[in-house]
Amino acid sequence: MSVSTAAAEKTLCHDVPGALPVLGRDVTVPLVTGGETTYAALDYAASAPALQRVWDDVAAYAPYYGSVHRGAGHLSQLSTGLFENARATVAEFLDCRADDQVVFTRSTTDSLNLLARALPDGCRVFVFETEHHAALLPWRDAQVTCLDAPCTPQQAVETLERALADRDPHGPALVCVTGASNVTGELWPVRELAAAAHAHGARIVLDAAQLAPHLPVSVRDLDVDWVAFSGHKLYAPFGSGVLAGRADWLSAAEPYLAGGGASRAVARRPDGGVEVEWHEGAARHEAGSPNVIGAHAVASACKALTEAGWDNLGARERHLLAKVREGLAEVPEVKILSLFGADAPRVGVLSFVVEGRSSSDLAVALSAEYGIGVRDGLFCAHPLVRTLLGGDRRARRECGAPGSAPDGTPLHAVRVSFGAGTPDEHVERFVAAVKELVGRGARGTGGTDDGRRAPAGG
Amino acid sequence: MSVSTAAAEKTLCHDVPGALPVLGRDVTVPLVTGGETTYAALDYAASAPALQRVWDDVAAYAPYYGSVHRGAGHLSQLSTGLFENARATVAEFLDCRADDQVVFTRSTTDSLNLLARALPDGCRVFVFETEHHAALLPWRDAQVTCLDAPCTPQQAVETLERALADRDPHGPALVCVTGASNVTGELWPVRELAAAAHAHGARIVLDAAQLAPHLPVSVRDLDVDWVAFSGHKLYAPFGSGVLAGRADWLSAAEPYLAGGGASRAVARRPDGGVEVEWHEGAARHEAGSPNVIGAHAVASACKALTEAGWDNLGARERHLLAKVREGLAEVPEVKILSLFGADAPRVGVLSFVVEGRSSSDLAVALSAEYGIGVRDGLFCAHPLVRTLLGGDRRARRECGAPGSAPDGTPLHAVRVSFGAGTPDEHVERFVAAVKELVGRGARGTGGTDDGRRAPAGG
Repeated sequence: MSVSTAAAEKTLCHDVPGALPVLGRDVTVPLVTGGETTYAALDYAASAPALQRVWDDVAAYAPYYGSVHRGAGHLSQLSTGLFENARATVAEFLDCRADDQVVFTRSTTDSLNLLARALPDGCRVFVFETEHHAALLPWRDAQVTCLDAPCTPQQAVETLERALADRDPHGPALVCVTGASNVTGELWPVRELAAAAHAHGARIVLDAAQLAPHLPVSVRDLDVDWVAFSGHKLYAPFGSGVLAGRADWLSAAEPYLAGGGASRAVARRPDGGVEVEWHEGAARHEAGSPNVIGAHAVASACKALTEAGWDNLGARERHLLAKVREGLAEVPEVKILSLFGADAPRVGVLSFVVEGRSSSDLAVALSAEYGIGVRDGLFCAHPLVRTLLGGDRRARRECGAPGSAPDGTPLHAVRVSFGAGTPDEHVERFVAAVKELVGRGARGTGGTDDGRRAPAGG
Repeated sequence: MSVSTAAAEKTLCHDVPGALPVLGRDVTVPLVTGGETTYAALDYAASAPALQRVWDDVAAYAPYYGSVHRGAGHLSQLSTGLFENARATVAEFLDCRADDQVVFTRSTTDSLNLLARALPDGCRVFVFETEHHAALLPWRDAQVTCLDAPCTPQQAVETLERALADRDPHGPALVCVTGASNVTGELWPVRELAAAAHAHGARIVLDAAQLAPHLPVSVRDLDVDWVAFSGHKLYAPFGSGVLAGRADWLSAAEPYLAGGGASRAVARRPDGGVEVEWHEGAARHEAGSPNVIGAHAVASACKALTEAGWDNLGARERHLLAKVREGLAEVPEVKILSLFGADAPRVGVLSFVVEGRSSSDLAVALSAEYGIGVRDGLFCAHPLVRTLLGGDRRARRECGAPGSAPDGTPLHAVRVSFGAGTPDEHVERFVAAVKELVGRGARGTGGTDDGRRAPAGG
């Protein structure tokens, strides 16, 4: 089904399974083979296109834009209301507890950096090596325990429990864990990890960057202390992300950004210095004029996904995922990266290599010859991808990662990812293209991905 | 001239002076007196409406949105090009030196917080108490010297020179100074302050949040080391700001945000820890997926202002400013806040009080009865406004600040501000409204601004 037909304008429903309308669904791109084709955006895990509904909401608001928390004018009042309503919508979307705070940040990366600045003294951080760099790296001066990649969800829980129990001294601790891997798409046992964390006197933050666009997230049910996600992966690419959760650490911390908006009162001291009384609440960490359009866009996406219905969205995504997996299963050279095994539940994010072929060349060919946008590289999760590609012998041995012959194993992987805006035709084109490219025989240069095109994102 | 007429669609030119088209120019708001009127946005100093051109550029790009610095797909490549072109456009707009860096942040506040995190060890910071909180507060653990409000630009230079000369030890130092005050609109002697800073072995960062929307900024001519500004005050309210300038401190600093995009390579160490090789250049401080729409919007605004021509924009703004000043001069109860005196050059930002009247009540009445959006309060510059309102006796005595009778002086001020999108009718309506409100006699409650509506922004 092509999204450029009028039928595709219909939003997803039980009777007519289809994609939610997104911007760019009619965009055509040139092909190196001549002519052009509609663009198949299959890099949702990096950035998803804006939902048409999100764009429409932004466009409807834009003429009414005004300063937030500042100004007596009608549009300032309206904009402040819109911004605070966006906060409430996000809290509802995440099923937050009554006293949780929702802080608007710029992205998951920013959210976790904010939390890193709010750790209490002596707090230790526990992360698996499998995390995205946004979750692996922000912890600065904290003592970080990096946990080995587990082979099963159960092993993840046991590994965490052991590490938390062994910590000395038994002081404050934070666990940071992804809900769904940005590399394998596999779901992590968040509820069980949260229970383990709390049983050992630790707190836990959920990196929901890849989870929130695909499955409902309930802070309450999962019993996580914080959750972070990005608007640009949630069909709202207007520069806003979210950190939501417990108020206490956030209220006790120095303001993440120091400036207007975070300061309630500022005065010269008799000694010539400056005395500041900081706000509590979300404003404490949101200095400067908030990105009200970004926050409004995130709230719009939260509403649109909720209204489309997670049952519908989930059924649709499983349908697309099955198409991709069944299609790739017919290509023996394709090895799908997995920590937890073929049957582990996952979202619409899947990385693979083709033995003896350069992932970079494959990704370039998918774009140039088929108009398909995927990503190749290490996906800002270098230790995980290297482990999965077999660079780490322990993982290769214990978890059965691909790469029986290191010489033939590419140094990068290809990732395909999709979501609520993806029509069947995109994944069908992708599967057909992979079959065709691999069928052409060994034209690539296995193992020679040299990182030339390796992006800043890694 | 009303912007809702077709004639107003014309962009500013020599023959037909007029406003640049902005979003919201036809928005109507309800009046408490019945009916409605077009909204007069006169709070540009907080947030300016988006230029129509900026919105059009964003709308044209949005369907082509893709991940930046990540992804092999056509739209990712296109988006990466657009993002890096935006950087180049900003560098040109600011007349940067060849080896300057342009880092996209979320706002001026964010930019100065980034620079604060990049100070070399032992760096002292020198700021006037007259700065916006975004410039006054971000310096964290650095030793900050807060300089008294000067009465003249010359005194500012002398005060700074003395403070820099007296510093002990004579180590690294940073001066942070505004280009145009967000309270008085008065221009600061940036070139002279930069020369003073450099003569004393210090560096200087220019807070151009209020300057860049009104006058051309040349990093080269002013000889400042860095400059910061916000998109939302530059007719591009899409969540992006800029820090541009010298690369050395930025490259030597820890990444502002730690995560993907800032990390070139990440690997487990033999001891189980994590080793990171960080990027140099702007990417070092831009972890996470960049706000490409925000950056594109800023670049669009830079181009639009440059193409409209600063001579034209300046002439138009002086015309509006003269209307406001001449109008307010006919109301003896109005006292305009000024550090440097009535004749000091200023941009289209002006704060005032009406003796014996609540500024908050005035601002509310301007909105409710006339559809005019202004701001009342302390404008995130508490020490300056308090000084100007006469709370600081030294300033009142030496600089002639208003408030001869402290009992009758409001505790807040009203600020009116405008720019390239402002039609004559808005400032005419504003002047007429002030005359009418003041003429109604003392209905207000002088000195009773109690901060109830004092916003988070202060």
